[in-house]
Amino acid sequence: MALKLVVIGGGSSYTPEIIEGMIKRYDSFPVSEIVLVDIEAGKGKLEVIGNLALRMVEKSGKPIKLSWTLDREKALENADFVSTQIRVGGLDARAKDERIPLSHGFIGQETNGAGGIMKAFRTIPVLMELAEDVHRICPNAWIINFTNPAGIVTEALLKHSFHQKVIGVCNIPFNMRHSTAEILNVSPEDVRIEFVGMNHFVFGKKVYVQGIDRTNEVLEKLQGDKLNYSPANIVNLGWSKTFIESTGLLPNPYHQYYFQTRDVLKKDIQSFHEHGTRAEKVMELEKSLFEIYSNQQLQDKPKELEERGGAFYSDVACSLMDSIYNNREDVQTVNTTNNGAIPDLPDDAVIEVNSVITSHGPEPITEGALPASVKGIVYQMKAFEELVILAAITGDYNDAYKAFVMNPLMGDEKQSKIVLDELLTAHQSYLPQFHF
Amino acid sequence: MALKLVVIGGGSSYTPEIIEGMIKRYDSFPVSEIVLVDIEAGKGKLEVIGNLALRMVEKSGKPIKLSWTLDREKALENADFVSTQIRVGGLDARAKDERIPLSHGFIGQETNGAGGIMKAFRTIPVLMELAEDVHRICPNAWIINFTNPAGIVTEALLKHSFHQKVIGVCNIPFNMRHSTAEILNVSPEDVRIEFVGMNHFVFGKKVYVQGIDRTNEVLEKLQGDKLNYSPANIVNLGWSKTFIESTGLLPNPYHQYYFQTRDVLKKDIQSFHEHGTRAEKVMELEKSLFEIYSNQQLQDKPKELEERGGAFYSDVACSLMDSIYNNREDVQTVNTTNNGAIPDLPDDAVIEVNSVITSHGPEPITEGALPASVKGIVYQMKAFEELVILAAITGDYNDAYKAFVMNPLMGDEKQSKIVLDELLTAHQSYLPQFHF
Amino acid sequence: MALKLVVIGGGSSYTPEIIEGMIKRYDSFPVSEIVLVDIEAGKGKLEVIGNLALRMVEKSGKPIKLSWTLDREKALENADFVSTQIRVGGLDARAKDERIPLSHGFIGQETNGAGGIMKAFRTIPVLMELAEDVHRICPNAWIINFTNPAGIVTEALLKHSFHQKVIGVCNIPFNMRHSTAEILNVSPEDVRIEFVGMNHFVFGKKVYVQGIDRTNEVLEKLQGDKLNYSPANIVNLGWSKTFIESTGLLPNPYHQYYFQTRDVLKKDIQSFHEHGTRAEKVMELEKSLFEIYSNQQLQDKPKELEERGGAFYSDVACSLMDSIYNNREDVQTVNTTNNGAIPDLPDDAVIEVNSVITSHGPEPITEGALPASVKGIVYQMKAFEELVILAAITGDYNDAYKAFVMNPLMGDEKQSKIVLDELLTAHQSYLPQFHF
Amino acid sequence: MALKLVVIGGGSSYTPEIIEGMIKRYDSFPVSEIVLVDIEAGKGKLEVIGNLALRMVEKSGKPIKLSWTLDREKALENADFVSTQIRVGGLDARAKDERIPLSHGFIGQETNGAGGIMKAFRTIPVLMELAEDVHRICPNAWIINFTNPAGIVTEALLKHSFHQKVIGVCNIPFNMRHSTAEILNVSPEDVRIEFVGMNHFVFGKKVYVQGIDRTNEVLEKLQGDKLNYSPANIVNLGWSKTFIESTGLLPNPYHQYYFQTRDVLKKDIQSFHEHGTRAEKVMELEKSLFEIYSNQQLQDKPKELEERGGAFYSDVACSLMDSIYNNREDVQTVNTTNNGAIPDLPDDAVIEVNSVITSHGPEPITEGALPASVKGIVYQMKAFEELVILAAITGDYNDAYKAFVMNPLMGDEKQSKIVLDELLTAHQSYLPQFHF
Repeated sequence: MALKLVVIGGGSSYTPEIIEGMIKRYDSFPVSEIVLVDIEAGKGKLEVIGNLALRMVEKSGKPIKLSWTLDREKALENADFVSTQIRVGGLDARAKDERIPLSHGFIGQETNGAGGIMKAFRTIPVLMELAEDVHRICPNAWIINFTNPAGIVTEALLKHSFHQKVIGVCNIPFNMRHSTAEILNVSPEDVRIEFVGMNHFVFGKKVYVQGIDRTNEVLEKLQGDKLNYSPANIVNLGWSKTFIESTGLLPNPYHQYYFQTRDVLKKDIQSFHEHGTRAEKVMELEKSLFEIYSNQQLQDKPKELEERGGAFYSDVACSLMDSIYNNREDVQTVNTTNNGAIPDLPDDAVIEVNSVITSHGPEPITEGALPASVKGIVYQMKAFEELVILAAITGDYNDAYKAFVMNPLMGDEKQSKIVLDELLTAHQSYLPQFHF
Repeated sequence: MALKLVVIGGGSSYTPEIIEGMIKRYDSFPVSEIVLVDIEAGKGKLEVIGNLALRMVEKSGKPIKLSWTLDREKALENADFVSTQIRVGGLDARAKDERIPLSHGFIGQETNGAGGIMKAFRTIPVLMELAEDVHRICPNAWIINFTNPAGIVTEALLKHSFHQKVIGVCNIPFNMRHSTAEILNVSPEDVRIEFVGMNHFVFGKKVYVQGIDRTNEVLEKLQGDKLNYSPANIVNLGWSKTFIESTGLLPNPYHQYYFQTRDVLKKDIQSFHEHGTRAEKVMELEKSLFEIYSNQQLQDKPKELEERGGAFYSDVACSLMDSIYNNREDVQTVNTTNNGAIPDLPDDAVIEVNSVITSHGPEPITEGALPASVKGIVYQMKAFEELVILAAITGDYNDAYKAFVMNPLMGDEKQSKIVLDELLTAHQSYLPQFHF
Repeated sequence: MALKLVVIGGGSSYTPEIIEGMIKRYDSFPVSEIVLVDIEAGKGKLEVIGNLALRMVEKSGKPIKLSWTLDREKALENADFVSTQIRVGGLDARAKDERIPLSHGFIGQETNGAGGIMKAFRTIPVLMELAEDVHRICPNAWIINFTNPAGIVTEALLKHSFHQKVIGVCNIPFNMRHSTAEILNVSPEDVRIEFVGMNHFVFGKKVYVQGIDRTNEVLEKLQGDKLNYSPANIVNLGWSKTFIESTGLLPNPYHQYYFQTRDVLKKDIQSFHEHGTRAEKVMELEKSLFEIYSNQQLQDKPKELEERGGAFYSDVACSLMDSIYNNREDVQTVNTTNNGAIPDLPDDAVIEVNSVITSHGPEPITEGALPASVKGIVYQMKAFEELVILAAITGDYNDAYKAFVMNPLMGDEKQSKIVLDELLTAHQSYLPQFHF
Repeated sequence: MALKLVVIGGGSSYTPEIIEGMIKRYDSFPVSEIVLVDIEAGKGKLEVIGNLALRMVEKSGKPIKLSWTLDREKALENADFVSTQIRVGGLDARAKDERIPLSHGFIGQETNGAGGIMKAFRTIPVLMELAEDVHRICPNAWIINFTNPAGIVTEALLKHSFHQKVIGVCNIPFNMRHSTAEILNVSPEDVRIEFVGMNHFVFGKKVYVQGIDRTNEVLEKLQGDKLNYSPANIVNLGWSKTFIESTGLLPNPYHQYYFQTRDVLKKDIQSFHEHGTRAEKVMELEKSLFEIYSNQQLQDKPKELEERGGAFYSDVACSLMDSIYNNREDVQTVNTTNNGAIPDLPDDAVIEVNSVITSHGPEPITEGALPASVKGIVYQMKAFEELVILAAITGDYNDAYKAFVMNPLMGDEKQSKIVLDELLTAHQSYLPQFHF
């Protein structure tokens, strides 16, 4: 039986990871065809990645048909899974998302604060179009979205596109599970974290090892220490004993932006002056990665890829596709519709939640009421996300402004306007829904 | 490592099934000790069952230490699992629960209507006491309750006792899954039904076979036919095409009491006149079962047990204990706290719900909003159950009356009082919480 | 300033009451024009009523321009208030709503059970059309709906028509307030009842006299007695001490159908055999009323009108219009959108609720959670009403069936179909939305 | 009939306003006795105020018995109304609430941010004690609380004390109504604002003049202008056109702390360096006020009182007491239990809401779902308030920390601890519930 995967943004430097994942899982998930799709602007990179992927498949000896194309509609025919890993505007756009807020004294980050909002504004219309294509051309296919901000983008698709087979994935829960396993010196497979919240704002509420609650042990070890817990793209300042003890929760690295704003801002501004933005660092990294990829001798995913913040994203996605295909009914952490899992949040909100993975999709496990300590901020973040999605769809200036002013990292009614205006102008060509 | 099971109501005729289950699962669930506990009045039956169980264990060759006793507190020491299968007042009380409402022209049934309310009134105080003993003597033990009305009793314990490791089980979801498998001619292991509602009022919303939605096929086959779907203790009148088609749900056999009241009542009254109540039929059945059990040659659970309505109850319980012990994270249907799985119902309501079974307990899978067609009646039944629990705890006459008058099978404000008064008098000795 | 009232169903025998109300309130509510509108079939009655109304206005000496017409669109021009009191299919249709269910052993009643559902099915499409006319022709006008089932009809309009200035009124809260005043021997103006529930299913939760809580006194006096509490169209069997005491609520007369079903049914069937249906009684009453109305000497609303069940309906409506016009901010009981007043019910449900009456509409006063004793049945009734509205809009047979089978007075899955089919056939010509 | 008012914190400089209010309203609210109560430390001020009050009463010629005392229990005997206007720790404590956060670069304010939290910590235990006294000595008395933070304090009492007749009042809604009337050039009596939110975080959603919606007109005039809108104790920076237009809401002056944090902080730090804190300014003001009050010729509330931020507070309280006493059923804006008025917030939250004022208390009018633009921040503020109340009751350090870190004006996990620790030490003698 044919099993076809289409990778949107196939020219991404992360693609070798997904190819490796497909090869590794071939026995249980026998993909018969992989098509890498990209746009005109990414043609050069697509060639490099396509050729590397081909060498990887050849080396594996698996009967996988691999090709690459700029013709998305053609590629989608008969697809079973469509993964998305795009970056509208490329790293240049990211650099602006980071630089402009920073220059006004606000957090400038890829998926948080003003930068994250702008990335959502650029991305949502493009993925809406993809979702409509999928719905028309291959209506039974699952979209596995790992384009950031993954949670917001997934919610936008589930609320506004006809295609409902959409799941968002992120490597943060994966990383937290692995770090926790390291802390406890156990195997990651034996660790289950009960997550609560949304993508990039998710907390760990309980840590179980083979079903036994070991949360307190993890919390104690987390205190004060600078554990190797953050992905490559985020600072790692550690957490105070008081914060961990009083909330009783495992924060994720992105929470530093919200609860250590001053220190992160100071560090980021300093680092910006010394090295430029993260985007600029990544541009260099990308350049050297593509040099490595171009080596015709290379037949494997190179080690260097792990230095990117998104490492393991595709591993998470491959596991998910495998469980859907095989109706495994195992528990994975995905971005999907709340449906009551967190009763405090709207039923149609997308949350990052442990779910039973079946052939008909993820079934979220209930989490119960949010912990009192964070219910306010979690609710506010979700309400903010709703404003972002609304503005991304309507292209209305006032809606965009509301998203800015209600974001905890912006907030200021006058500054929000200044930063928004500068960003809208900077990204104008990628924001067709906004009227200028 | 020791693994101890205590069976409360060990003298029940269902016990051989649980013994068989323990033997069958020994490799994955190596129970090292089983204690059967009963009360003075059940001493004779306990002896018979104890001896049969001993012969079964001996035949199996498994190193299980089996004993029986009237000393509950002693038995509970170091218990890991405590199963409950008691009948306060015995079959005599059941006969009254059936006879008295019927004599006034109302459904008289063991777990529904006036009879079910009275069973809850008799049972809850006794199990509350057990729960307190467990909490004191073996606080880490799980209570696996299959005493009816299982959902109401479980909710009462979870709301009012300190012991929170309580799970309710019922054979109805098991039966529905098996009947559905038969209808589709597939293996029961491959069938998953998405259930919605409460114990004895649960509907099937979706039927998946290996993850594929085959609900419509089942619904079509269900229409009009009198499928072999009801347990032995309930009539089987079949369902109209219109009901199945318009609700799009699989009813359970108990729903006949609510949606075919007139016909069931007519049948039950006729049957009552011809054969007496179901309780009286069961008394005979029990008598002959115990004769069989007394046969010193018998070393197995006899076939005849399957004629009882509760067959497979213990099989369900054994599976559950196995998954808890092994942290299997498989999906089973249990009675546990809602926690948002059905957002329309209170978070602390007990519902019958597909749950991931772990060593730290069941984690319910979200179901989303109730189907519009049944949300009213499901909500009403839950509100009614709350009134039953309140009255069982307070022993307040007015609370008891409210439970009666708000039960859809009673409803009449004057008749409710008459039937309630007669039942309270009849069961007086088993209702210490009520003041007479 | 012109102030224009249009009375839809102007040929109704209740119209003299509304004319009297307008005259009585002229000083504070100076209506300058009243147009009575009816359909071709009601032309004769419209003439009679129109002439009587003219004589009433003339006698009053108020400068009110009164006219009557069959041209609804013309009449609506510049209207400020549009009151509706129509009966689609007339009393003949009502007779069928009463006869057919009764003949199958179910409650046959104008606004409850199967009959009430059919009345909703006939009425909603007609009033939807009116609402669209109003929205187009006189968008600032308030529709004051006293067409039954008033709550269901109002919810249908508020949910499905563009016109949102719609308020439903009923005389039951008015009657309960007056009866209560009589019980306590105080003036009705000093009595405020805190109502909870929906039209024709509303309970009194608290009775205040000049702000002092006198609920218990009223409940005590209500017990057992057959107070003069029911309108002319409903039986009056009284309530048991136990029911009143345990719920702590004032039932309304319609609750007898639900909590005294057996006795009401027995009475209704007996009365049906002796006198025919209520509709038939009303036909006679109407005939004699119109004879009285035709008397050219008559210049007042005759006493005989009070024998109809709907007496005081128009008084309630007149008070409401007066408070809207004058922005009185007084408290009246109306049918309007819940908006959280009862948190257990959907925000967009229409409930019968004490509201502050302003020029921009009624503002409901919060009631808090439903009393535990009735929350189940109230919720179920609301869920049932939603099914009725859905079916009235879609004309889908299965939706209609669901409304029948989920109505507590029907319930039976097989009988529901039989009664529904017979009623659909009987009313076919008034149910254009249903396909036959 | 006797009508007795007890003023807790009677030595407050605001007391002359309440005395004036009582005299002014004597005809409809014939208070027969007023007792001013204060503590030992306030004895001197109580004397001055008591004597001034006496002179005011004498001048009025009303038969009001006025006295002052340090014996609270005695004073409470037979009280009908108990108003509270206390400041635990006096202006010295306030100065610390303002200075300490400011010195760490955070907003230092009497009722917002870290300062407001500390004020709640000092005040709640004292008022809990008062509430228990009232409940024991004069259980039918209403507590009219205008002690800040008025909303939080009222919620604490309603959740944790037995006495449930507690209403909170604030002058902000009053001020907004008057400013709006000025903007529209109409009489304040004709203006009704639909408020949404909590005390000091309340927005105006709709402005009606004699029932006509004139919201947009007010919003337009509000934009950009620095309207005379803030009370004396708050900066007045004005609002941007974009903020007003996009939210469509009337902010209150305190919102500047949240949406103009940078600018307010800059201004406050500058002002702090130039003039010291607001507390210090008020100390001077108080001093000169008391000099004026001591003038034995003075028989009226002096004009100078209006320079305090809390002006009109007591006017609001007097109106409220009048409506309760007379069961007026008029609409006033008070702090009372939500009860569903804002369905997004917990039913037992205290909100600032338009309510019908009756003799049995305020009945909130429903507001419906929060506007999308502010629902996140309003919810978060309420969740934060819950943390404050919890900590004020438990005296638990971690609870206190959670309130700090979840306050939008603090937020930083490390700085929160530093500021909290410094404040706890500074206020140690007024925080008996905390363990040091």
